[in-house]
Amino acid sequence: MEKLEQLINNQVKDWSLDQKFYKDKEIFDLEIEKIYMNSWLLAGHQSQIPNTGDYFLFNLLSESVIIIRGKDGGIRAFMNVCRHRGSHVCLEIKGNVKRLTCPYHAWTYNLEGALVAAKYLSNNIDKDNLGLHSCSIDVIEGLIMINFSDNPISIAMMKQELSEPMQMFGMKDLKIAAHRNYSIEANWKLTVENYNECYHCAPAHPEYAKSHSLKYDESSKEYQSAQKLMIDALAKCGMKNYEISADYEDQIESQEQYAYGRYALFGKYITGSEDGKALAPLIGEITEYNPGASDFTLGPVSFLLAYSDHVVAYVFTPVTHQTSQCDVYWMVDKDAKEGKDYDLERLIWLWDVTTKADERIIANNQKGVNSRKYTSGPFSEKESTEKNFISWYLNHLRETL
Amino acid sequence: MEKLEQLINNQVKDWSLDQKFYKDKEIFDLEIEKIYMNSWLLAGHQSQIPNTGDYFLFNLLSESVIIIRGKDGGIRAFMNVCRHRGSHVCLEIKGNVKRLTCPYHAWTYNLEGALVAAKYLSNNIDKDNLGLHSCSIDVIEGLIMINFSDNPISIAMMKQELSEPMQMFGMKDLKIAAHRNYSIEANWKLTVENYNECYHCAPAHPEYAKSHSLKYDESSKEYQSAQKLMIDALAKCGMKNYEISADYEDQIESQEQYAYGRYALFGKYITGSEDGKALAPLIGEITEYNPGASDFTLGPVSFLLAYSDHVVAYVFTPVTHQTSQCDVYWMVDKDAKEGKDYDLERLIWLWDVTTKADERIIANNQKGVNSRKYTSGPFSEKESTEKNFISWYLNHLRETL
Amino acid sequence: MEKLEQLINNQVKDWSLDQKFYKDKEIFDLEIEKIYMNSWLLAGHQSQIPNTGDYFLFNLLSESVIIIRGKDGGIRAFMNVCRHRGSHVCLEIKGNVKRLTCPYHAWTYNLEGALVAAKYLSNNIDKDNLGLHSCSIDVIEGLIMINFSDNPISIAMMKQELSEPMQMFGMKDLKIAAHRNYSIEANWKLTVENYNECYHCAPAHPEYAKSHSLKYDESSKEYQSAQKLMIDALAKCGMKNYEISADYEDQIESQEQYAYGRYALFGKYITGSEDGKALAPLIGEITEYNPGASDFTLGPVSFLLAYSDHVVAYVFTPVTHQTSQCDVYWMVDKDAKEGKDYDLERLIWLWDVTTKADERIIANNQKGVNSRKYTSGPFSEKESTEKNFISWYLNHLRETL
Repeated sequence: MEKLEQLINNQVKDWSLDQKFYKDKEIFDLEIEKIYMNSWLLAGHQSQIPNTGDYFLFNLLSESVIIIRGKDGGIRAFMNVCRHRGSHVCLEIKGNVKRLTCPYHAWTYNLEGALVAAKYLSNNIDKDNLGLHSCSIDVIEGLIMINFSDNPISIAMMKQELSEPMQMFGMKDLKIAAHRNYSIEANWKLTVENYNECYHCAPAHPEYAKSHSLKYDESSKEYQSAQKLMIDALAKCGMKNYEISADYEDQIESQEQYAYGRYALFGKYITGSEDGKALAPLIGEITEYNPGASDFTLGPVSFLLAYSDHVVAYVFTPVTHQTSQCDVYWMVDKDAKEGKDYDLERLIWLWDVTTKADERIIANNQKGVNSRKYTSGPFSEKESTEKNFISWYLNHLRETL
Repeated sequence: MEKLEQLINNQVKDWSLDQKFYKDKEIFDLEIEKIYMNSWLLAGHQSQIPNTGDYFLFNLLSESVIIIRGKDGGIRAFMNVCRHRGSHVCLEIKGNVKRLTCPYHAWTYNLEGALVAAKYLSNNIDKDNLGLHSCSIDVIEGLIMINFSDNPISIAMMKQELSEPMQMFGMKDLKIAAHRNYSIEANWKLTVENYNECYHCAPAHPEYAKSHSLKYDESSKEYQSAQKLMIDALAKCGMKNYEISADYEDQIESQEQYAYGRYALFGKYITGSEDGKALAPLIGEITEYNPGASDFTLGPVSFLLAYSDHVVAYVFTPVTHQTSQCDVYWMVDKDAKEGKDYDLERLIWLWDVTTKADERIIANNQKGVNSRKYTSGPFSEKESTEKNFISWYLNHLRETL
Repeated sequence: MEKLEQLINNQVKDWSLDQKFYKDKEIFDLEIEKIYMNSWLLAGHQSQIPNTGDYFLFNLLSESVIIIRGKDGGIRAFMNVCRHRGSHVCLEIKGNVKRLTCPYHAWTYNLEGALVAAKYLSNNIDKDNLGLHSCSIDVIEGLIMINFSDNPISIAMMKQELSEPMQMFGMKDLKIAAHRNYSIEANWKLTVENYNECYHCAPAHPEYAKSHSLKYDESSKEYQSAQKLMIDALAKCGMKNYEISADYEDQIESQEQYAYGRYALFGKYITGSEDGKALAPLIGEITEYNPGASDFTLGPVSFLLAYSDHVVAYVFTPVTHQTSQCDVYWMVDKDAKEGKDYDLERLIWLWDVTTKADERIIANNQKGVNSRKYTSGPFSEKESTEKNFISWYLNHLRETL
């Protein structure tokens, strides 16, 4: 693709991408192979499969992965593809099984993926080579990460550096209280760009802007004074201040990218709620509500937003070159009881209303980008993470040439 | 596209187009760039936006145009694409605004399209170059014409020659009483071909054929006697006889094509109504109901049909290479009041029932054209305008080679 | 397509097809031209059009065929494409006509397909060359077979060899009691492969497996003892034993493929019913219920399953490269009366429930086949007909190179 090289070289630094990056089907296919099939993706939480034989499916484009708890308590990932003629083996999105039996011809695999029964199969065929294809998987403080590459980039540094802040929020001991899937009629990059900039927060998200200081520029008095109050209060809340930046232009060579940071909520807001009041019991090592929100970056398209009493996870995935989806998970302490310790509608309110607004906003962005008259425009000074994402993306794509 | 050249050269004169012209996605893309992006299109009527800040959108394929009334009373057209990151600026199909503010990051443009606010934008960036992209526009006797080309073909002759007949119908002083959009499962050329021939009127449109003499061949006694009565009555109706032919093979070089003609209604029909009776107050300079209908051609895909008391406008646009749409507008005198001076259902009856029939007819045409066994067939002697359209089309396409 | 040659050569014998054969749009297009446009397809039964002017449509992809009874009692097939501008001539799926008049411009053809009226058509145009395009057609014992090729492969041997077993079931004297169309979200080959193997019958079709011995391997005691009982009973039922194998690897050169065989039902089942009891009056030459089911193969994608009292016909056709449809017809003696001699719900029960299950099964097969991690797998010993289909398919495709 000589044209792609030219396209990349023609990009003006700190200006938005050329239209072709959002419209071209061939570039999209490249991105899938280079980025989605080679990146660590947040697939779920270990609390979804507590018992032997519990499983759930993670689906992305043509791929379906069975994430299952083995007899040894370990969590494994297998491609949901029978080795006989390729049928999906698990049809339900989650369940519990003793063995994995394909519904088509009853080929049967054990929880470690080995083929243990295949009637009428000639003895000449070596069954040992007919186990389910495995998928790369790792679990970080309860969070299940998968990677479709057989030779995935290392996730070791992320695991090592994020484990402390994750423990602060008791990630291991959370459960998923709610999961929603949002369809966005736009190229996946527009969804990730949207997540990576808060320039649009003030004009487009009044609900968020009421409570989150990030609506201001980080250099502003308003942001900095709120930030100081939040940080000064960390210690008495049982929390520590971390700043970890190994994403995008700071990505460590041969390591999956990651980051951590925390910013303040305004005055009366102690969590991401409509009224500023608590939504659920405190989580992890936190002893008192702290008016802030922590951002975790887990690879290029998975994010966490951690409050004192709940954690919201975001995963952005493509459907076609001009449609995407966003999975949002709301997690609370595993012992919290719905109706007693938290109210589901209150819990999900902020990020449900905000993501629904983004569905519209991003779709309207794609519509304009599709115009023959769309031209690249300059990023503002409040879009630095997005700029970094774009640079990272262009560098990544360049490597495919 | 050598193949295209061959395809064009293989066409037999006065026989229908080869299947590929209706099925091939590449040829369709060429047509869009060559024809739709370079032709004048009827977008609406000035009465839709009487006041400063009134606007409506004209959408075609990936394009959206804001047609807006400025402070100076002038009508301008801007591409609905923010210069920051490309979002649509106007989301509602019509409205009134003081300024054009993008809903994404609040970049704000004045009614002349200049960028007047963009928070956090570096001072190094020249805002003067970041106004909304404009779209070519002209207004002919109240009718708004746009052209996506930055260097459009001249519309001057059309304006000059059609202004008199348009004034006869008081085009400037009409209002849109109804607007319907019809989806047609066929290539756009089949829709324009259908509009350009009345060979199908007798077998396929009994409602139309009852009243309009064009169901007969123009050389027939029936047609000519009706025509004579209608023309003889023009003067006493305050009307004049014009014949203007500058479309298709008569197109003037470097000028957009146009045409005007008038044909008779039968006996008791004084307008295009079900019962032959008047539908609305007389329009323009017309002093008495004249039993005829005038055809205006405004560029290759926009048409008017003018009766003594109302004007019907037709605009044919593509959606995909095998789906199209037809926008139909019914216009009456601006002072006519619905319910009192005209009944909406009676007004739209003829061309609603006729266009719905065409939706079916043209879709069935496309279905057969898609067959491997479809072969080009001979045009009849009652399809001369269609023949001319096909010649014009082939010549236009040849220029792209 | 050098790549295709390599793909074909890389196939391991008796292992399932490479993913590309199920996903690649170009290969699909080749298959349509090579296989579907050159094979005999079961289109219906003569009882659908008993009278002069009776017709029905057979639709496949972009093609529509009018199958019509002429004044001489003969059955003809015409492409449903007007020779004027290509419109479909017949819009209703079935009907009775005196002449075939195109609804667009009223060009009119007689029942032999000749153009007999075309108003305003210049006398210079030779109408004799403007008859409806014909489609190859043959009728075998009442079953209507069509072939889109103008120079189709011979169907003579099929006709000759299958006529006796067909007469045994009185094929000529059947009528269609029910016709259902099933949509299957999978490549057409997965649907034909599914039909051609009964390895999945035991795990996936409990309703079928209860009564049909084919759920067992043909070498098994269970199968062979049931088979003996059934064959021994043939004579007293007025039936004969045939074994005809001219399909797939046994296909006779330059002849369309065909086959006939019969296998047993279990004990108390005398036909393919839920309770084992009769569903309709005996058909053809059969004098007593025989506990068996006969398989007819009529070309590569049309099949019959004949019980003592009814015949089920299966026709598999593609819609896109990843969607297909299956038409199922239930036929009974022409004199049998619904409600009196047979109950429609009982009649269709088995193959309706089984085909609905296959809809799901085959779609899940396609889903897994679409995965990047799908790899070809070994056929079992109970998939021999499917293996033969695959070999035949690959040989057929090789001929296109």
